[in-house]
Amino acid sequence: MSKYQYLKELVYEANMEIPKEELAIVTFGNVSGIDRNAGIIAIKPSGVPYHRLRVEDIVIVDMDNVLVEGNMRPSSDTKTHTLLYKNFPFIGGVCHTHSTYAVAWAQAIRPIPNFGTTHADHLTSSIPVTDVMSDAMIEGDYELETGNQILDIFKKNSLSPEEVEMVLVACHGPFTWGCDPAKAVYNSVVLEEIARMAFLTLQINPETSPIKNSLIAKHYFRKHGKDAYYGQGC
Amino acid sequence: MSKYQYLKELVYEANMEIPKEELAIVTFGNVSGIDRNAGIIAIKPSGVPYHRLRVEDIVIVDMDNVLVEGNMRPSSDTKTHTLLYKNFPFIGGVCHTHSTYAVAWAQAIRPIPNFGTTHADHLTSSIPVTDVMSDAMIEGDYELETGNQILDIFKKNSLSPEEVEMVLVACHGPFTWGCDPAKAVYNSVVLEEIARMAFLTLQINPETSPIKNSLIAKHYFRKHGKDAYYGQGC
Amino acid sequence: MSKYQYLKELVYEANMEIPKEELAIVTFGNVSGIDRNAGIIAIKPSGVPYHRLRVEDIVIVDMDNVLVEGNMRPSSDTKTHTLLYKNFPFIGGVCHTHSTYAVAWAQAIRPIPNFGTTHADHLTSSIPVTDVMSDAMIEGDYELETGNQILDIFKKNSLSPEEVEMVLVACHGPFTWGCDPAKAVYNSVVLEEIARMAFLTLQINPETSPIKNSLIAKHYFRKHGKDAYYGQGC
Amino acid sequence: MSKYQYLKELVYEANMEIPKEELAIVTFGNVSGIDRNAGIIAIKPSGVPYHRLRVEDIVIVDMDNVLVEGNMRPSSDTKTHTLLYKNFPFIGGVCHTHSTYAVAWAQAIRPIPNFGTTHADHLTSSIPVTDVMSDAMIEGDYELETGNQILDIFKKNSLSPEEVEMVLVACHGPFTWGCDPAKAVYNSVVLEEIARMAFLTLQINPETSPIKNSLIAKHYFRKHGKDAYYGQGC
Repeated sequence: MSKYQYLKELVYEANMEIPKEELAIVTFGNVSGIDRNAGIIAIKPSGVPYHRLRVEDIVIVDMDNVLVEGNMRPSSDTKTHTLLYKNFPFIGGVCHTHSTYAVAWAQAIRPIPNFGTTHADHLTSSIPVTDVMSDAMIEGDYELETGNQILDIFKKNSLSPEEVEMVLVACHGPFTWGCDPAKAVYNSVVLEEIARMAFLTLQINPETSPIKNSLIAKHYFRKHGKDAYYGQGC
Repeated sequence: MSKYQYLKELVYEANMEIPKEELAIVTFGNVSGIDRNAGIIAIKPSGVPYHRLRVEDIVIVDMDNVLVEGNMRPSSDTKTHTLLYKNFPFIGGVCHTHSTYAVAWAQAIRPIPNFGTTHADHLTSSIPVTDVMSDAMIEGDYELETGNQILDIFKKNSLSPEEVEMVLVACHGPFTWGCDPAKAVYNSVVLEEIARMAFLTLQINPETSPIKNSLIAKHYFRKHGKDAYYGQGC
Repeated sequence: MSKYQYLKELVYEANMEIPKEELAIVTFGNVSGIDRNAGIIAIKPSGVPYHRLRVEDIVIVDMDNVLVEGNMRPSSDTKTHTLLYKNFPFIGGVCHTHSTYAVAWAQAIRPIPNFGTTHADHLTSSIPVTDVMSDAMIEGDYELETGNQILDIFKKNSLSPEEVEMVLVACHGPFTWGCDPAKAVYNSVVLEEIARMAFLTLQINPETSPIKNSLIAKHYFRKHGKDAYYGQGC
Repeated sequence: MSKYQYLKELVYEANMEIPKEELAIVTFGNVSGIDRNAGIIAIKPSGVPYHRLRVEDIVIVDMDNVLVEGNMRPSSDTKTHTLLYKNFPFIGGVCHTHSTYAVAWAQAIRPIPNFGTTHADHLTSSIPVTDVMSDAMIEGDYELETGNQILDIFKKNSLSPEEVEMVLVACHGPFTWGCDPAKAVYNSVVLEEIARMAFLTLQINPETSPIKNSLIAKHYFRKHGKDAYYGQGC
């Protein structure tokens, strides 16, 4: 039995939420989890369809993306995951999907405006979209640069990755994260629904404005921070 | 066994319709029911995912929102529910969801026009949307004020809450009610479908007008009032 | 056992396809079948949710809409069904649903153009929409007049109800028919898909024209008439 | 037992993916597979609903479309399949569906632009749409000419059918192919999702441009060719 068995099981379960929640078809998408003490991450193997994925297929790599355990190649997006773990020290899981509405906003290269309380319950800003990568970045260390694009848009927009746990990579699709792999997938589920609601909102009224700051603050701080009163406080 | 066991089971069953009917994802949404003789309401606990919800988790509060029975916090929307029960003396259940198309209309801050017989079978007017709340209301007793916004739009538009059992809270989402918790959820199911049909209708023909009053009256009174002949008359 | 047991079972099975194929929510929709020798039709009872419907609930009425057998009221749309059976002597089943996309076209009061071979496999014309009813008709014998509106649009457009087995009633929704109750429901399934495809087609290209007559004829006569070569020829 | 039993089972399984993946309703769609040594193809019988299809119903025809084995008529689209097998010598399976979004693009007679990495993971060009057929072709050997239209657009656009494994037939719907029947259906699943994403992208931003060539090349060659590093390399 692997010494990382517990993490592999968590990461396996989180990956299996992707087809169950219809966040991606065929082999698309991947979830990882980190053991910061051991300095390793567990991640979906590349290109394996979900209905064939098994716990023992989950791959372990170290923080330099070197294979530690597993018979398969890790996800081709592994370098994006490790870069996020290195720069966001409080996160425990990362999720990447090709969910339909989030991808549509990413392809349209448009941030998702904060149009309502479903959105404000989770973050105060719009959902950011990265810049389009330069040819040099694409032709260089592409998956690492994907992570750098995410870091850059957070810096440029002065966003906190502790508050904003989701981003759209331009022309590509969403990445989300959270305290553990399950929370990272939860954020992908929420993002897809927010993306769908915002799409429909603009179809009904193309002039819709983002909601007022007081309403954003009310909903966000009902659920987050020391004065939160939503949920059971755990 | 709780002395409110019967109501808790009704409210539990009604809440479980929310994920089954795809009216909300994750923990969103909540249904309550009232025992007017006992002066209490039963409501979903705050932030609990539906697949973990149990009958014994349903919370009992009194009409002043004071906890009567239960180990968990009641829904953060409880004050909205109790205000509706106080002001609409004939209702037995209230349902709040984040169903996708109803939320989109609420975010676009547009009432849903009465475009067809599916709508007119249930109410004669458009489906109202509240005004946007003032900052003072949002920063004050927010969930109570949400209820007040609902009461205000019914007063302003001279609507009867016995006839119009559904409303959109601007920038937020739908609330519905009915003679019991199950009927409140039924109205959320119907509202979501009406919202979807109206959305598609405007996409096909942005100039579509509401249907004529005679057709509204025909369909509404086929199903409601002393001359109703739809259904089995119970 | 009812002497119409066989027909009641057919009609029950056909009605249960409505929720299974997602052609309507809650109690909406109804399917009937006819025994022309006995001069009776079997139809869904009014307002009964599908998950509670039983074979023995199916109501038998005669061609004058008089109850022959059953403990419940027949569908409130029964007079529309009987009028269609009287005027379309070759049909064995009628289906009425509130399927979402077909209703949207009916609410937009727009016929569905023949945009492709999926449509042309089933009929050569556009899918007709009736005129809006006059107040006098609505306030008179409404369900009978609904049937008359269908007959009128077929006459006005010189359509054959043997070829065109589907229609949209303006501001209301679709009626379909066929050689038996199952075929009537099949046509509702096909209509909903054609309605969805046509909606999306116009969203992609609002200037899309109907397909050419030669292609319509090719596809329609692959499946219908003496030179048909689609299917197993039964 | 048929000497083509193995191929019939593969083709049966691939056909059953069509309803499972919701690529077509009722009897629409068909998948075939080829045994190039034996010079035969196995294909779905015409007009059989999927829930009644059995392995023994799969029809065997030779490369001149002559029946070799089976009690039913082969798909009416058989000549299109055989023409593709003859001209694309490396393919082992062909799939035709009426999936909703792909049909909508085909009906709108618009190629699907390469808007993102989901698309670029599978092909570098836009997804081509054939020209509209002439009346003479439609009234002649229609299904053969459907195949010719596909060959023509590949020639006209200098496309490689080894790279571009999918096409839209104008006014009709998609055909896809691959190394075996399962891969042909996989490509239909992917095409439908790309078609849906591209539709939504244009609704959000009608001015969206195709992605840059460097990003297309990066994603395509991550998955294809000698330097591929996506998947497990089998």
